[in-house]
Amino acid sequence: MPYTLSQASLPVFEIGLNAINAVLDKAAAHAAAKKIDMSVLLAWRLAPDMFPLTRQIQIITDQAKNGSARLAGIDPPKFEDTETTLDQLKERIAKTLAFLKTLDKGAIDASSEREITFPLGAHKGQMTGADYLKHFVLPNFYFHMTTAYGLMRSCGVDIGKRDFMGGIPLKTI
Amino acid sequence: MPYTLSQASLPVFEIGLNAINAVLDKAAAHAAAKKIDMSVLLAWRLAPDMFPLTRQIQIITDQAKNGSARLAGIDPPKFEDTETTLDQLKERIAKTLAFLKTLDKGAIDASSEREITFPLGAHKGQMTGADYLKHFVLPNFYFHMTTAYGLMRSCGVDIGKRDFMGGIPLKTI
Repeated sequence: MPYTLSQASLPVFEIGLNAINAVLDKAAAHAAAKKIDMSVLLAWRLAPDMFPLTRQIQIITDQAKNGSARLAGIDPPKFEDTETTLDQLKERIAKTLAFLKTLDKGAIDASSEREITFPLGAHKGQMTGADYLKHFVLPNFYFHMTTAYGLMRSCGVDIGKRDFMGGIPLKTI
Repeated sequence: MPYTLSQASLPVFEIGLNAINAVLDKAAAHAAAKKIDMSVLLAWRLAPDMFPLTRQIQIITDQAKNGSARLAGIDPPKFEDTETTLDQLKERIAKTLAFLKTLDKGAIDASSEREITFPLGAHKGQMTGADYLKHFVLPNFYFHMTTAYGLMRSCGVDIGKRDFMGGIPLKTI
């Protein structure tokens, strides 16, 4: 009954990134229908000292690419955080999805007990690969996924839990 | 390099439940300082058609206890959803934490390829154990964790990302 770090990470990021990409499309349709400039939604925040939608999307993609690259033992590609439009954010998501496909699953699987060192504010964090995935990368990934979703919900975008969950391998009986 | 379903679930729920328990304490302190009745915070919502804080806490605990019980192959204990006070919600979290300690880790680990059937609205959902954990239980757990956190943030409670992450095994160097 194997369960591996690559199984626990790559498909989760893939489904999540595709889900948030579709949520952004629904947000754009909502903005167009209501004659709201999309830049207003991209700058929306849940609280004045929380990040706006644009930054949430940047961090979601960072968690996916940086987390899985570090597990695979390679340096993550650096994305400049210069996106200002919906199309640029969607391109960033697409680039992240393409990068995930290049990773060596065996290298990720072999990292569960290896110490991973990663930037953490002005310091560095260190955790085993398994702990890094389950206690750092996934909570952060979902934190920003949910916050992005909640932002759009609070703006009136017509999305529900299924949009958040995305294309999961669920059989309904 | 083993990575198991019990490792990927039980400590994640434990850290998350303790984190949200501490967030609720900070919310209560905030309410007391601002002379806001705690029932106002417990009824707060991000959007009119999203669940209030009380329900978010109920679902967080449900995902943890139901998810892990089903992976262990046993019927989850049923909690009546009757909490109306902070103390009752904290007791629900404590009961969930105590229940998690009773589960058979070997049974959870053995369930990665076993079909799990679970209630899903008016239907039932079916997924393998590994898929159920990573594509259903964890996304739902974190969705409601983050929404509860975001609700408290939007009410002005003085919490940050560290409060959300909780007591993770992180070494700072």
